[in-house]
Amino acid sequence: MTGATSIRKLPSLSGLHHRRNPLEDNPFFHPSNGFYITPSDVILAQVAYDLSAQSQSRVAYHRAGPRREIMYEPSAVKAAIVTCGGLCPGMNTVIRELVVGLWELYGVREIYGIPAGYRGFYSMEAVKLDPKAVHDWHKKGGTVLATSRGGFHLHKIVDAIQLNGFNQVYIIGGDGTMRGAVEIFKEISLRKLEVGITGIPKTVDNDVGIIDRSFGFQTAVEMAQQAISAAHVEAESAVNGIGLVKLMGRSTGHIALHATLSSRDVDCCLIPEMDFYLEGKGGLFEFLEKRLKERGHAVLVVAEGAGQEMIPRNESQKQERDESGNPVFLDVGVWFKSVLKDWWGREHPDELFTVKYIDPTYMIRAVPANATDNLYCTLLAHSAIHGVMAGYTGFVPGPINGNYAYIPLEEVALTKNKVNMSDHKWAWVRSVTNQPDFETNFKGQSL
Amino acid sequence: MTGATSIRKLPSLSGLHHRRNPLEDNPFFHPSNGFYITPSDVILAQVAYDLSAQSQSRVAYHRAGPRREIMYEPSAVKAAIVTCGGLCPGMNTVIRELVVGLWELYGVREIYGIPAGYRGFYSMEAVKLDPKAVHDWHKKGGTVLATSRGGFHLHKIVDAIQLNGFNQVYIIGGDGTMRGAVEIFKEISLRKLEVGITGIPKTVDNDVGIIDRSFGFQTAVEMAQQAISAAHVEAESAVNGIGLVKLMGRSTGHIALHATLSSRDVDCCLIPEMDFYLEGKGGLFEFLEKRLKERGHAVLVVAEGAGQEMIPRNESQKQERDESGNPVFLDVGVWFKSVLKDWWGREHPDELFTVKYIDPTYMIRAVPANATDNLYCTLLAHSAIHGVMAGYTGFVPGPINGNYAYIPLEEVALTKNKVNMSDHKWAWVRSVTNQPDFETNFKGQSL
Amino acid sequence: MTGATSIRKLPSLSGLHHRRNPLEDNPFFHPSNGFYITPSDVILAQVAYDLSAQSQSRVAYHRAGPRREIMYEPSAVKAAIVTCGGLCPGMNTVIRELVVGLWELYGVREIYGIPAGYRGFYSMEAVKLDPKAVHDWHKKGGTVLATSRGGFHLHKIVDAIQLNGFNQVYIIGGDGTMRGAVEIFKEISLRKLEVGITGIPKTVDNDVGIIDRSFGFQTAVEMAQQAISAAHVEAESAVNGIGLVKLMGRSTGHIALHATLSSRDVDCCLIPEMDFYLEGKGGLFEFLEKRLKERGHAVLVVAEGAGQEMIPRNESQKQERDESGNPVFLDVGVWFKSVLKDWWGREHPDELFTVKYIDPTYMIRAVPANATDNLYCTLLAHSAIHGVMAGYTGFVPGPINGNYAYIPLEEVALTKNKVNMSDHKWAWVRSVTNQPDFETNFKGQSL
Amino acid sequence: MTGATSIRKLPSLSGLHHRRNPLEDNPFFHPSNGFYITPSDVILAQVAYDLSAQSQSRVAYHRAGPRREIMYEPSAVKAAIVTCGGLCPGMNTVIRELVVGLWELYGVREIYGIPAGYRGFYSMEAVKLDPKAVHDWHKKGGTVLATSRGGFHLHKIVDAIQLNGFNQVYIIGGDGTMRGAVEIFKEISLRKLEVGITGIPKTVDNDVGIIDRSFGFQTAVEMAQQAISAAHVEAESAVNGIGLVKLMGRSTGHIALHATLSSRDVDCCLIPEMDFYLEGKGGLFEFLEKRLKERGHAVLVVAEGAGQEMIPRNESQKQERDESGNPVFLDVGVWFKSVLKDWWGREHPDELFTVKYIDPTYMIRAVPANATDNLYCTLLAHSAIHGVMAGYTGFVPGPINGNYAYIPLEEVALTKNKVNMSDHKWAWVRSVTNQPDFETNFKGQSL
Repeated sequence: MTGATSIRKLPSLSGLHHRRNPLEDNPFFHPSNGFYITPSDVILAQVAYDLSAQSQSRVAYHRAGPRREIMYEPSAVKAAIVTCGGLCPGMNTVIRELVVGLWELYGVREIYGIPAGYRGFYSMEAVKLDPKAVHDWHKKGGTVLATSRGGFHLHKIVDAIQLNGFNQVYIIGGDGTMRGAVEIFKEISLRKLEVGITGIPKTVDNDVGIIDRSFGFQTAVEMAQQAISAAHVEAESAVNGIGLVKLMGRSTGHIALHATLSSRDVDCCLIPEMDFYLEGKGGLFEFLEKRLKERGHAVLVVAEGAGQEMIPRNESQKQERDESGNPVFLDVGVWFKSVLKDWWGREHPDELFTVKYIDPTYMIRAVPANATDNLYCTLLAHSAIHGVMAGYTGFVPGPINGNYAYIPLEEVALTKNKVNMSDHKWAWVRSVTNQPDFETNFKGQSL
Repeated sequence: MTGATSIRKLPSLSGLHHRRNPLEDNPFFHPSNGFYITPSDVILAQVAYDLSAQSQSRVAYHRAGPRREIMYEPSAVKAAIVTCGGLCPGMNTVIRELVVGLWELYGVREIYGIPAGYRGFYSMEAVKLDPKAVHDWHKKGGTVLATSRGGFHLHKIVDAIQLNGFNQVYIIGGDGTMRGAVEIFKEISLRKLEVGITGIPKTVDNDVGIIDRSFGFQTAVEMAQQAISAAHVEAESAVNGIGLVKLMGRSTGHIALHATLSSRDVDCCLIPEMDFYLEGKGGLFEFLEKRLKERGHAVLVVAEGAGQEMIPRNESQKQERDESGNPVFLDVGVWFKSVLKDWWGREHPDELFTVKYIDPTYMIRAVPANATDNLYCTLLAHSAIHGVMAGYTGFVPGPINGNYAYIPLEEVALTKNKVNMSDHKWAWVRSVTNQPDFETNFKGQSL
Repeated sequence: MTGATSIRKLPSLSGLHHRRNPLEDNPFFHPSNGFYITPSDVILAQVAYDLSAQSQSRVAYHRAGPRREIMYEPSAVKAAIVTCGGLCPGMNTVIRELVVGLWELYGVREIYGIPAGYRGFYSMEAVKLDPKAVHDWHKKGGTVLATSRGGFHLHKIVDAIQLNGFNQVYIIGGDGTMRGAVEIFKEISLRKLEVGITGIPKTVDNDVGIIDRSFGFQTAVEMAQQAISAAHVEAESAVNGIGLVKLMGRSTGHIALHATLSSRDVDCCLIPEMDFYLEGKGGLFEFLEKRLKERGHAVLVVAEGAGQEMIPRNESQKQERDESGNPVFLDVGVWFKSVLKDWWGREHPDELFTVKYIDPTYMIRAVPANATDNLYCTLLAHSAIHGVMAGYTGFVPGPINGNYAYIPLEEVALTKNKVNMSDHKWAWVRSVTNQPDFETNFKGQSL
Repeated sequence: MTGATSIRKLPSLSGLHHRRNPLEDNPFFHPSNGFYITPSDVILAQVAYDLSAQSQSRVAYHRAGPRREIMYEPSAVKAAIVTCGGLCPGMNTVIRELVVGLWELYGVREIYGIPAGYRGFYSMEAVKLDPKAVHDWHKKGGTVLATSRGGFHLHKIVDAIQLNGFNQVYIIGGDGTMRGAVEIFKEISLRKLEVGITGIPKTVDNDVGIIDRSFGFQTAVEMAQQAISAAHVEAESAVNGIGLVKLMGRSTGHIALHATLSSRDVDCCLIPEMDFYLEGKGGLFEFLEKRLKERGHAVLVVAEGAGQEMIPRNESQKQERDESGNPVFLDVGVWFKSVLKDWWGREHPDELFTVKYIDPTYMIRAVPANATDNLYCTLLAHSAIHGVMAGYTGFVPGPINGNYAYIPLEEVALTKNKVNMSDHKWAWVRSVTNQPDFETNFKGQSL
């Protein structure tokens, strides 16, 4: 394991002056040896190596944490915080800790919440925040600032930032939001504004790459188990009962996978990363038939993005596009409920059969973060603050191999975190459920 | 307050012999004074009186509890337990306590579970039960015996009872099930079989009359609050957000009403007992518009039976009947979500609006009973056993004014427990929500 | 069942004027037939009768609810609310509903919270309350007003009431508090003040007589099960493991009894109403020895008032008296842990043995009320308000046979609700635990 | 960042033959590229680097996972699983997954549970386990196998292993247990037995070094928050109320620290890693006095190992030693309760003061693992199995920088994971609580 280590460069604000970090004088911090992070402190992107392999270049990210010198005069900071997209456990904790951290660590006094997502920048009034106002927010689900999808008008937003004199902008949102943040960052650079931009990825689906996992994910898995447990009880209590649970996950099946593994009550787990088929040898119906015969019931977990291409679309659905121009998602749970009933009615017209369909999405998203996520959100918020105060911009804070680092925003916006269908975890799902190996079957079938 | 007291007569088995109650010799019971209940022990049906009113005849029910003499030789008892209809928290506790009670209190050793509801009598094999087998069932949701709707074939069922030699039958189910139990009881009488029949009303909706409340109801209200809480978070976190929760209750709105009162986060609660309208002055839309303007969000709770006649039906839905010949229920939640979106799109095409619809039905029904319901289920099961052992048949055990009594099965099967729209509780809902008084409005409107 | 019905008289304020109930004009109430309660509306104290018994005189209480005429000009009302004694789930709900009810139902605008119990009347400043201030209190454990024991100085309190011009006083507290309220009521009468006094019994132990049960009790039982469950896991996971749980209940064992019945994981339940002994034939040690041999573990639930006279007291403990002059309570859990260890060490010096002692008291008391208790607290608060507004004083509102009634404060302060050791419920505990019948054993032993 | 990478060597069994891994033929696994781990696959022990520093030698551990060849004939494996020491959430999941993993992944059929810890090897009969027997164990708290402390007799244990023919031994336990496992491993080597030994560190305190964290820790933190929340309610509801919570942690304060950070309701957190003092300037009493004056209440969290040297010991306590020869631990919570009361009584004899002390230890330890810990336990168990089957012995599986690795057992047994008092997390605790900086104060004071 030799070879060079290349550090992912972070943009930084150039027109600002260096000054002493006020943490120096903070009674709660003893800036001992190693307390301040320097630009040469890095986190390795990769920690598992094959030593027998040839010399590889290593990627590293700047380590997150306080810098000895900062680039803002705290009294001149005017910070804006905005939440965009769907709910995710922990959003309020992130907001709270941004406010409390800016206030307590750096003495910032002008902190504003932008209501209702991106559109709030140009269409609503910002809300002044301070530690007292946000005191109990970490115990609340949702986002007190409110959120919305869309509303991204680049120029209106940057105009508003300029007009309001915000010089730090904290953007909490999903992949679309992060792509928007990149554009804002670029426009800010173009206009040569001294405004630090940081993105905090919020995706309950855990579909963001590079970072270890996204906040709220562990809380969501915990809650998802409850829905699976209810589906299991419903299925077990019926004759030929199917418990069907749709879980979040448009492009990735992480929640479905983790909840399946934790609960171990699932007979089949279908996720967007996999192909599957219903009819014929090795298909889902055959499997369910067998399982019902053996056990009298079955539990089916489906990520919302699974099987989208199999759901028939009417003309208007074929045309409909979401804000990003992609075909809209259809409700895979409702579709499944109907095809399951059709199938059984066709094959076993005289036998009882029940499908109990549970869509727990909003009951999962709306809970407060659990302890693990609560801590994660706080470290995320503090990392963001330290980075922005140090003059970095256009970056994302996040844990890499368990350590907090700064990643270029653009890099995060471009990656996806998919379930690796060939690794041990997926094999483990299959060995927990004993579900069919559709891919192999399919190949076999097509011979 | 003078006047006669009339006791509701209970049928009883005639061909059996009296014998000493084995509780006499049970080490855990000291049959002290007042321990045994006699036929002259009654529970008054009414406890609130207007003393200024004229002499009234009073109704009373036989009090539940052990009798000094029983009518079965315990070693000759062969008991069957069956669960029918949908899930309800506490079913497993009732089964468990019937088994443990028959076994421990009376020394019965032949106890069978009929799987999968009424159809299990004639199409499946009964399962032998004993205290060890049911040991942990009170901690499980659903029914380990499994359940189903329909499958009621009177003669097949009574034939099976006869063939298997069951001489005690415990039937746990909803109103349809209770009507079936009446028929079974009558057919049993006709055939002059010495078989005790008791019905234990299971209705998570609390729509059974005469008794104080049905088991599982309090657990359901507890869980329903979680769904309301999630809807509230979703609504609050959105711009013009509506949180819409559909709760159980086909003919009555008890769960919706109680959950609304407990949570106090609801802006409008709609139940089957009330009329309401959407458009125009005093209508729902006007109210929601106002609430959204004031608070930015609103939470709407709808019992599944509310507004059924307002939902447009296509031809096939118009024809479709359920097993009892009534028009099928349409999904009021899905309908509401769509009319709300239409309304807003029409009235405010350029403003954001979000409806988050939560249907927590299966997540509510499938949980284990809470402590209150757990105790209730046990007292119910013990009351049933004491009554059957004493030779009563065709009856229902249940709490009346806080005391356990025996009620003729037929009487229970004929009653309904509706929400009284003119009493304090409903007024209280309205004062919690400040929702419109549709009835008055409607009258006003039609002038 | 003939004979006279005697109504328990309620004191009422005499110097006030009748006026129309503002509910008449409240948009949320339709004072339909039967809406208003009259003095001839009563609730029977007894609902279970032996019809063969001789003519009995019947006791009845005035029914709770709004009266057609009230005795206060709402704008002249100045209400005080105080909470005394230990915590109990639901206290905040009672306070909240007193505030909201007075405000919304009757238009009262001067409502004050007395901080920190009785002493707050004369030593602290009252806090102005309104619906906005108390909005979320029903979701919080404890009492936002704060509470304390003692501090009862009759004259200081009544002076303060007089000085502040309070003309309605709502006192929430346990039996000591209720006895204090009686004295306040009497002193108020003596001074001929037109001040309505009502007591709302708060006792997590459920030791108040006459009423069906006290608020917070069902929540407490629910939580107590968690402690029992943990003790069970600890005991099961050890070799000769004893799980020991101390539950609230100084003079009565209701919580211990109900939690034992709900959980069914308890091997022995000891309450203040029973005698028991440790050594010798039929004693606790013999029983535990047997249970450990059979199952390898045992769970012991002890109400805090059980076995007090068995715990050896040192000289200072012998002298120590509580505020009421009774010997102080010693910690039965700590004592039990030690005698159990001594016993085992003596009898089986070479065998493993573990006692895991859990005292969940504060974790039980401090939770918010569950849905059932939440509703109960609200009906209690509303009943109190209606009664006071109607001019009643020196009374307690509470459910009797499931209906809300008004009971003379003095009567409530004098009663106790003990566990009836000869009724079915206790027999049921014994049949669940199969624990020894100490009383019978003891008699046997002493022969 | 140049320099050599040194791999920590793992012992392995030498007398066994290589054979094909049965995963090759397992329908649920596609041993694709990268599926099998080779001896050159490593996990770096360090992931945060200062690139400006001089060339450093890097430490790496062998990566965990399946090997292409294994060293046991599955049908010849006889595996033993033992749990030692106190309870920890997830123990049952680890056992379950060892059983299921050995059975399903490798086809092992002889799997035994050793009851009651180390002593079970030589004094009790092993229990045969299979997937059906352990099916629901991951939903149960505690350990179904039972556990105990002590009972470590090296020769008796190894004799028993030899006698029973166990050739794989999985030992789940704390640091004492791990030191025992090292001795067993050495004795096994000495006797030249072909027995694979693996240790799975179980420490709810998270005091094991090298690995990222120990299983059950996150569940424990979650539960600890509930106790803090109750203490907060009790304190807030009292006049000068102190809520005192003792949390697990003899040598380290991780649980106290994490629960303090998650809940944010704590005023002062005391852990074993820190010195503190009560009296005088900058001491705890001064701080509490100030906090009570400002807020009327305070919450104090104390790890069980904090302040041990401050608690006065009587003669017998001075002599008493635990099994390892160290002075026994005294109950810091009970001591604190008493010194707090003394202090207040001395300083403010006429003012109210209340300490509510909560010891939630057994209620925390006894719960089932949450979803995060559940998954962790499974990966741990699978890693252990793969390692043992591959012929490694004397090792511990565990996550390092988020990746599973094998660590020499001896190395783990020698390390401790202490809270770093000079890092950001502890500064963060102080900034959340604003508690005194005892160390600095102390230095200041002694001047």
